Amino acid sequence: MTVLVVGSVALDSVETPFGKADDVLGGSGTFFSSSASHFVPVQLVGVVGSDYPVEKLQPLAARGVDLAGLERAEGESFRWRGRYRHDLNSAETLETRLGVFSHFKPKIPAQFRNAPFVFLANIDPRLQLEVLKQVERPKLVACDTMNFWIESRRSDLLELLGKVDLITLNDGEARQLTEQSNLIKAAKWILARGPKHVIIKKGEHGAFMFTKDTVFFAPAYPLENIFDPTGAGDSFAGGFIGYLARTGDLSEANLRRAVIYGSAMGSFAVEGFSTSRLLEITADDINRRVQEFARLVAFDASIGT
Amino acid sequence: MTVLVVGSVALDSVETPFGKADDVLGGSGTFFSSSASHFVPVQLVGVVGSDYPVEKLQPLAARGVDLAGLERAEGESFRWRGRYRHDLNSAETLETRLGVFSHFKPKIPAQFRNAPFVFLANIDPRLQLEVLKQVERPKLVACDTMNFWIESRRSDLLELLGKVDLITLNDGEARQLTEQSNLIKAAKWILARGPKHVIIKKGEHGAFMFTKDTVFFAPAYPLENIFDPTGAGDSFAGGFIGYLARTGDLSEANLRRAVIYGSAMGSFAVEGFSTSRLLEITADDINRRVQEFARLVAFDASIGT
Repeated sequence: MTVLVVGSVALDSVETPFGKADDVLGGSGTFFSSSASHFVPVQLVGVVGSDYPVEKLQPLAARGVDLAGLERAEGESFRWRGRYRHDLNSAETLETRLGVFSHFKPKIPAQFRNAPFVFLANIDPRLQLEVLKQVERPKLVACDTMNFWIESRRSDLLELLGKVDLITLNDGEARQLTEQSNLIKAAKWILARGPKHVIIKKGEHGAFMFTKDTVFFAPAYPLENIFDPTGAGDSFAGGFIGYLARTGDLSEANLRRAVIYGSAMGSFAVEGFSTSRLLEITADDINRRVQEFARLVAFDASIGT
Repeated sequence: MTVLVVGSVALDSVETPFGKADDVLGGSGTFFSSSASHFVPVQLVGVVGSDYPVEKLQPLAARGVDLAGLERAEGESFRWRGRYRHDLNSAETLETRLGVFSHFKPKIPAQFRNAPFVFLANIDPRLQLEVLKQVERPKLVACDTMNFWIESRRSDLLELLGKVDLITLNDGEARQLTEQSNLIKAAKWILARGPKHVIIKKGEHGAFMFTKDTVFFAPAYPLENIFDPTGAGDSFAGGFIGYLARTGDLSEANLRRAVIYGSAMGSFAVEGFSTSRLLEITADDINRRVQEFARLVAFDASIGT
């Protein structure tokens, strides 16, 4: 089954303790698509400026990412410049130039409107709501968000919560949105406002998936070298939704597996700058890493004291 | 099999967002013993001052903690006063009065010297080394340490590493000791210096157990209310070593189970002030929580993409 994603397509310039990369593929829509395309065909809706080196998106198109919904607008592309310090835990934003992204009005092409899986990547909640008006009752709608929208578009975000099946957000955002420092309480707060599933991402500390009755925890894959943390969250989402769309199974057991596939894709994303690693791995690499996740947490609880 | 623990026996005064407790049972030896006594008989070696309300230790004695090695010295007992802010992640030490603990010279009673399992709780590495001279080739020796000793007793600590089978320390301490920000690299650094197992505790983010060839990760149990984080690490160690001593099995599979029992005990410790919760739980409570850990991380990786 196909996945429709609406998000940013940007040019990133990133500096980490391991090196630098200038004007490389970036943006939530780009990372999500690169990741999800390992599982299913992806339809990407976004905008780039007239300066965007669209040939750089060829590897995505070659992987089955349909770029028919990628608008080219007059003006500059969205550019983000950031730096990671030694601990690699949080990006320091040096510059954000929204360019044409600041006037982005997502238009879903007619042939994308019946996509069964929809991911509303981190954009203005008002635009996320606009997208939902243009699509035809998907099997699953998931969204992401960020601190900026939680602050500036709270009521729109709350309206959106009532219309999505699942939300992914990081621990800091969950605390900010819910004003609950405890993540279980934060998840309950969100679940009470609409979504049936809440995924709280804790970066290098793994991710929780909450439903009304269950909690699932997936560790982050322990890597000895992390080259560039940019896009890990969107790559997680791409693996998660991509796996669900491929299997078409929304059972709790399959959602748990999807979280592991998402975690695996997040772990690949940070092994190279930009989307480089995501675009070189194979299905075997992914399945092998999923098995490593299984070994990482495996214990036999059947022998009591 | 019996566990010998050498550590501090203190009086804690703790303030958290949920309340206060004054002059309650504290110290690494106390938490370890309270936890390990759910699995095996424990021999506690430590020192208290002439002011210590020893009757408060009766519940430990009643649970099978042998206090024959608890010295009573002239002077004040070790007192720690601390506060946890809203996020409960790190204690703010308001006052530390070492009292008689500053002159502590552990003397292992003759009847404790052949204990098969030995835990050297967080005390001066020189004293930890002294203890090892007094015991007869245990089946397993584990130690803990802290930032203060890493700074002030580095060479003694390195000597100790060559003489223990296992070390538990938290992520910050592991980074400080090894000067490696990456925890896998930190673990390798430590493994190269003696211990066959390294457990790196990440508090609310769980714990890693590393060997030369394997990595195991156990999440922290997600609790909605954490009353008092004091002693979680020592309670973890008590559950871990206690389970190993009870089963007498040092296989990788059993060490993994022991980490989960340790994590379970750590999760109980923080559900009440001081040792209160540890001293009221039953074997059923513990086994139930271990099963909940299993459900928390369970997924079936057998279905590939």
